[in-house]
Amino acid sequence: MNRREIVQASLGLLAGPWIGRQAPPWRAWRIDGDRVARWLVELSQFGATPEGGVSRTGFSEADVAAREWIKPIMRSAGLEVAVDPAGNILGKRPGTDPSLKPLLFGSHIDSVLNGGNYDGDVGTLGAIEVARLLAEKGYRNRHPLWVTLWCDEENGLTGSRGFLGQLTAEDLARPAGPNGPPLADQIRKIGGDPDAMAGYRHGPGSIAGYVELHIEQGGVLDQTGQAIGVVEGIVGIRSWEVTVTGFANHAGTTPMDQRKNALVAAAEVVLAVDRIVKAMPGRQVGTVGRLQVRPGAQNVVPGEVEFSIEIRDLSTETLERLWGEIRAAADAIMSRHGTTWSARERATNLPAMADATVRGVIDGAARDLGLSTRSMPSGAGHDAQNLARIGPMGMIFVPSVGGISHAPREYTRPEDVTNGVNVLLQTMLRLDQRA
Amino acid sequence: MNRREIVQASLGLLAGPWIGRQAPPWRAWRIDGDRVARWLVELSQFGATPEGGVSRTGFSEADVAAREWIKPIMRSAGLEVAVDPAGNILGKRPGTDPSLKPLLFGSHIDSVLNGGNYDGDVGTLGAIEVARLLAEKGYRNRHPLWVTLWCDEENGLTGSRGFLGQLTAEDLARPAGPNGPPLADQIRKIGGDPDAMAGYRHGPGSIAGYVELHIEQGGVLDQTGQAIGVVEGIVGIRSWEVTVTGFANHAGTTPMDQRKNALVAAAEVVLAVDRIVKAMPGRQVGTVGRLQVRPGAQNVVPGEVEFSIEIRDLSTETLERLWGEIRAAADAIMSRHGTTWSARERATNLPAMADATVRGVIDGAARDLGLSTRSMPSGAGHDAQNLARIGPMGMIFVPSVGGISHAPREYTRPEDVTNGVNVLLQTMLRLDQRA
Repeated sequence: MNRREIVQASLGLLAGPWIGRQAPPWRAWRIDGDRVARWLVELSQFGATPEGGVSRTGFSEADVAAREWIKPIMRSAGLEVAVDPAGNILGKRPGTDPSLKPLLFGSHIDSVLNGGNYDGDVGTLGAIEVARLLAEKGYRNRHPLWVTLWCDEENGLTGSRGFLGQLTAEDLARPAGPNGPPLADQIRKIGGDPDAMAGYRHGPGSIAGYVELHIEQGGVLDQTGQAIGVVEGIVGIRSWEVTVTGFANHAGTTPMDQRKNALVAAAEVVLAVDRIVKAMPGRQVGTVGRLQVRPGAQNVVPGEVEFSIEIRDLSTETLERLWGEIRAAADAIMSRHGTTWSARERATNLPAMADATVRGVIDGAARDLGLSTRSMPSGAGHDAQNLARIGPMGMIFVPSVGGISHAPREYTRPEDVTNGVNVLLQTMLRLDQRA
Repeated sequence: MNRREIVQASLGLLAGPWIGRQAPPWRAWRIDGDRVARWLVELSQFGATPEGGVSRTGFSEADVAAREWIKPIMRSAGLEVAVDPAGNILGKRPGTDPSLKPLLFGSHIDSVLNGGNYDGDVGTLGAIEVARLLAEKGYRNRHPLWVTLWCDEENGLTGSRGFLGQLTAEDLARPAGPNGPPLADQIRKIGGDPDAMAGYRHGPGSIAGYVELHIEQGGVLDQTGQAIGVVEGIVGIRSWEVTVTGFANHAGTTPMDQRKNALVAAAEVVLAVDRIVKAMPGRQVGTVGRLQVRPGAQNVVPGEVEFSIEIRDLSTETLERLWGEIRAAADAIMSRHGTTWSARERATNLPAMADATVRGVIDGAARDLGLSTRSMPSGAGHDAQNLARIGPMGMIFVPSVGGISHAPREYTRPEDVTNGVNVLLQTMLRLDQRA
């Protein structure tokens, strides 16, 4: 969807039920930014680290405590709170039109190890504040509204996968995290019901829509000075575990021309990934983030190097082309060095596009609030990518200062949080008012 | 020393005490290769690993047992056996001329973890076989002959440093190996006397010479088909611990042009080290053998990379020039990537040149045995580099199949071992007969 289409979709909405009358009163409603800021500080106590960040991994004690802290807040926002079989906290506000499907909005409150205080928290607390305001205003929503707090987001979008009915018996039996207890036990610990998972499923067409407010986690909005990111979609991720095999030998006695140095070959592949990803026009990214050298001693020519390659883009075709070029480059590098390589593809995340209409609604809501917007991909994964499979999905991004995320220094200014929650409010209201 | 000088030195010897007479009878003496081969098999039982190699690290149970196995063999070779304060086993054969200093020859029997059955063992058992033959023949050596079994060679040439009087009280108090007991306790365990170390010292000029037979540990002789390597010297080693600092960030949300990727910068340095070392004429080597990425996750742009750089050559000037070029290349790489780097130099090993005369003797002895020779540096460190500081040093190399060493597949053919021990025998005899 280009800019013109977004504007058209946005205008289309203005032809909704309220057209021709006065602008509806809810257009002037604004959320309480101070309240959200206070909640953010309170939530940051659960799993707080000395560095000012948070370690609140899914199912940890801190996560369990934070979930118990948030439930009464959700109830006081007028929501009927329950934990679903997958361990997600759902806060429901019944609608007036029984024929309409639920509109969902929310995020997560689990964090990565040594993470920050905004990833997930902003969208979760923002959604609760929206619900609170609707209750305060006595808004009579047409759709059922569900505030969704997905469990264990950072470890593979566990909760939203469960919501879709995609957690298999095998998934439930597997350890949740390295050396952890089985996922089923963890889900049970937070009030879920793994035994009921087999019959629990939300299929395509079962929801009216899903909107998630989130920090950008990148530096684009912070750099351009734009207030709101309207997410085009969540990038697909392909990743491989690559092994380069040479021959380990004594670093003192092996002449340079007799070496099969796996690290020299691997270093060329690292540079090839970077070069190839940068050379193609577009916003794709590619990273070698992990790399291990064997045997890994100062005085031994490396015999084997194992590393990850990860590429992300909204287009599966672009991902395929990138991988083709990387493969060809690696083949050429190996033949030059007398080394060999193999690559094992890991789980692939398909790109998940945001719904054009929802994008238009978000963009229109932001502009009516006087906020500048930018259409952009989400380079990070979100539960929204799962929800996109069962209904129209949209995401609202707010700026991350310096683009820092998954780190204690992760920060979003209070005014940007307030802007984001107001856009979420106006988006949910507009979606609710649509036929 | 060039080929002509070697030949001259070799001829010079022929003008020794026996010239003008019949060739002395010992010229025809040959060691018993089968006996050495049997000893090698017996020694390989101590610390044997399932892979067919050996883990007989210094001071380990296997090392202690092997030392107890070897002492009676040394005694039956006519040697007076004692452990010196530093823990070395010295097997002495008194000389006939009280004015002459001792001639030393030997090696070590400790191994690296998961090492092979030839590194050290060949030179040690070869020296004992030479002593045994001299006893059998009733040879009346002019110099005292000392068969030296240096302790804990693989962990920093401990025994030969102690022989020179270079183990400080601080060294003795430090753990021997990671989490090990203090070195003093280990030395005491194998019969040494750390309390006597303060007064134990062999200074420059205290020995008539030292000769060590050793496997090459590289693939040069194996590739050229030459039988004997005449070592020019033991290379100097300089090494650094390098840190490249970039900025860790989300691999999905950080655009390629906003990254400060420490691994991309480090990979360029890895390639620069390889390129610079190869570009300079000579036999220098340079290696990045260890490399660690932080935080080291597939989905995080590397923020910091730590790695080793090690360069080796016989010339300190070449080492200095190489390092200068590597430094300049790294500076340029860092400024291109917005990263920074620092390097901390680790302990430096100075090059240790073999004595020209001893080299000539070895070369002549080999040629008289009908063996082809090659003048070459030792890229690996040896106790001989310490002995070179107190007297004329020489080393005899025999081929390592495939250049493999410090690994279970380390192998030297029995005929090559026999050749090496015969060269050692004839070298010691000639050195003994020199004025």
